[in-house]
Amino acid sequence: MSKQTKFLLNESQMPKAWYNINADLPFAPEPVLHPQTLEPVTPDFLSVLFPMSLILQEISTEQYIEIPEPVQEVYKLWRPTPFFRAHRLEKALDTPARIYYKYEGVSPAGSHKPNTAVPQAFYNKEAGVKALTTETGAGQWGSALSMACNHFGLDLEVYMVKVSYQQKPYRRNLMQVYGADVYASPTDRTNYGRSVLAENPDSPGSLGIAISEAVEVAAMSGGAKKYSLGSVLNHVLMHQTVIGEEVLMQLEMADDYPDVVIACTGGGSNFGGFAFPFLRKNLQDGKQTKIVAAEPAASPSLTRGKYAFDYGDTARMAPVVKMHTLGHTFVPPTIHAGGLRYHGMSPIVSALVDHDLVEARSVKQLDTFKAAVTFARAEGIVPAPEPTHAIAVAIDEALKCKESGEEKTIIFNLCGHGHFDMAAYDAYFRGALEDFEYPEAEIEAAMKLLPVVG
Amino acid sequence: MSKQTKFLLNESQMPKAWYNINADLPFAPEPVLHPQTLEPVTPDFLSVLFPMSLILQEISTEQYIEIPEPVQEVYKLWRPTPFFRAHRLEKALDTPARIYYKYEGVSPAGSHKPNTAVPQAFYNKEAGVKALTTETGAGQWGSALSMACNHFGLDLEVYMVKVSYQQKPYRRNLMQVYGADVYASPTDRTNYGRSVLAENPDSPGSLGIAISEAVEVAAMSGGAKKYSLGSVLNHVLMHQTVIGEEVLMQLEMADDYPDVVIACTGGGSNFGGFAFPFLRKNLQDGKQTKIVAAEPAASPSLTRGKYAFDYGDTARMAPVVKMHTLGHTFVPPTIHAGGLRYHGMSPIVSALVDHDLVEARSVKQLDTFKAAVTFARAEGIVPAPEPTHAIAVAIDEALKCKESGEEKTIIFNLCGHGHFDMAAYDAYFRGALEDFEYPEAEIEAAMKLLPVVG
Repeated sequence: MSKQTKFLLNESQMPKAWYNINADLPFAPEPVLHPQTLEPVTPDFLSVLFPMSLILQEISTEQYIEIPEPVQEVYKLWRPTPFFRAHRLEKALDTPARIYYKYEGVSPAGSHKPNTAVPQAFYNKEAGVKALTTETGAGQWGSALSMACNHFGLDLEVYMVKVSYQQKPYRRNLMQVYGADVYASPTDRTNYGRSVLAENPDSPGSLGIAISEAVEVAAMSGGAKKYSLGSVLNHVLMHQTVIGEEVLMQLEMADDYPDVVIACTGGGSNFGGFAFPFLRKNLQDGKQTKIVAAEPAASPSLTRGKYAFDYGDTARMAPVVKMHTLGHTFVPPTIHAGGLRYHGMSPIVSALVDHDLVEARSVKQLDTFKAAVTFARAEGIVPAPEPTHAIAVAIDEALKCKESGEEKTIIFNLCGHGHFDMAAYDAYFRGALEDFEYPEAEIEAAMKLLPVVG
Repeated sequence: MSKQTKFLLNESQMPKAWYNINADLPFAPEPVLHPQTLEPVTPDFLSVLFPMSLILQEISTEQYIEIPEPVQEVYKLWRPTPFFRAHRLEKALDTPARIYYKYEGVSPAGSHKPNTAVPQAFYNKEAGVKALTTETGAGQWGSALSMACNHFGLDLEVYMVKVSYQQKPYRRNLMQVYGADVYASPTDRTNYGRSVLAENPDSPGSLGIAISEAVEVAAMSGGAKKYSLGSVLNHVLMHQTVIGEEVLMQLEMADDYPDVVIACTGGGSNFGGFAFPFLRKNLQDGKQTKIVAAEPAASPSLTRGKYAFDYGDTARMAPVVKMHTLGHTFVPPTIHAGGLRYHGMSPIVSALVDHDLVEARSVKQLDTFKAAVTFARAEGIVPAPEPTHAIAVAIDEALKCKESGEEKTIIFNLCGHGHFDMAAYDAYFRGALEDFEYPEAEIEAAMKLLPVVG
């Protein structure tokens, strides 16, 4: 136990560029389609919602894109983040595997989300935008963008999924500290929100609905407001690659390299940010690391959804993309991993799964909390409900090593702490948490509503 | 703004010894008195509550005490902690002062408290103890000791001040994740708790009452359980000096030295841990750093209490020590900085204030939250309510520099994050927070109940 626990980088070692996996994919990207015409969109269409600099990043095939100096300056408030060898967890599991985790919970917002919030706020500010709109599930994204907008002097409207707004008032308060305006979605502030409420006044909301509201407000603002998305899009995943790039350096310090790389995935940004640099090594340097995307059994787009063109939002205002989807009408059950409650998935991550370059696994809610408590009692840190999915898979892999005697190296991303989510742990200990299984028939019915393309 | 933001140490640079200021004090320590006889206690009396190794530390005059290897191993889960130059806060205040802060919120419990919880659990384990009892105010201490007891396989009963138990359920849940049993004090589990409830069934509790309960359970256990205290005692303050020792190294990295050192104080452990290494430099190396203890105006032991012998707890079961006290019958108003709600103060810190080696200042609750929001919007991190007292004083000092044009170096300890305390921020923004002023007549009345010594 006297071996090294933490692998730290100095801020001078912080990555100076983001990695764009679009430069290295062994297949052509699928087109992004207009939600009404179902024809490929032009940058002009996207410019209603995004500044041109981010649109150019979205379609870029440059392998690396430089991180602007003002973004690096804000990153320094918490980056580089620590990388841990989980000596105590290994001992608790009695496994010959070496387990490491990257810890993104040291950011002021408590998660990895500021990694893209900060550049998005920066590029919007640079483009002369005065205000942003966004949605948030559990509140990680909303609080990260609130912090970023505050740093760059932008106003922000956050549409927060109602069930999270109620379950997680602390994250809402955090957004208020940073000066953002937060609304429980569905709201009566938008045409779409009003239509949802008319049909079901008790709607718990969903990420899809909240996206539609935030998009509507930006699209109807006549250019005054732009929209910011916390996951799914290429440029968002790219901004998160600072995580994996740091881990590559930290693994060199540890003189190790992973056999298994695991991250949880909702829209895909945490997964992409952690795993894409390792995919580059697989694609270019002949590494054969197994790369696992862990998702909730209650919102199983990668493991039970269809790889097809679908709308990114519920109101069919967002572009149509090819992705693993449960159907844009899917409203996931109210699991505590609110950040993973999304009907779709990043198109890149979907394509990688479709090409067998990434393996997808789903984990049930009770199993994730069991893994989380095992982890917290071993390592101290209490994880947010989202990364518990990665922890559960990592523990599974380590226990397989125990059976086989293999000394594999397993790494995962601990993308946020659970200090905002203690009510979920309370429910777990009280026996009040449930597993959810989405009926196959409902998935089949939702698939009938997919847009017919080509 | 391209200057360095964070000063990081590697775990190999972690201090290997705690600093014991008792070796360097320019005055003799006052005796510790038995609560019944008011005669000096012997180590035997204390051994009902504490293992002999900690009692020996309590009375030691060795300048440095080695940190045991197993304690260092647990420290490595979060130590060394980062030290920040507050470039953004300086800019927001438009001050010529250089402001730095140490950040202890990166510990798994979110505060500095594990620095002493871990060695206390370790020494008890080594002495063959099976279970500990303790009290907790806001829950920082309880959650830290829960984590530490879990690491060393000890059972733990936590008596949590009732108002915090109700206001801060998340910290209670955190203790449960680490496997502790948590009770809202006053409880009906102890003679003293029952007597308090008989007099006032709605008692909000206080740290003094909770101490009495935890002490009673340990004292009545026939040796099966020992008691653990999160502040006030010499050995507790000493364990916290890892903070200040790290800061000395980090200031060398920054090529700077403070003119003003500021930390908040409730029982004194955060203050002592941060400031004592700088006091050593003042006492021994001729440095002339101003050292400021910041306390709540609502619980103003240093600024309005009397320097006198008093009981450490409300039930007069704990030893009698010479300290700044508001009287052991004082129940502080229910401010959100629950960790600072104590009628007394560390005897060492009290003596240092009495000898004008430390300056005490009180801050009103509303001013602390105003300072906290200024800090959070500048630096990102949302502080716990306790360190906001230090932030308020640091901002005051920086604004004085702005007036005078002095380029002073100001450092303070950000001893915990506020992610468990967002309800307090919510109350602040809703205008529901109050300032409290303890009437002079009540302080005078409480002083009449002090034990008459000598």
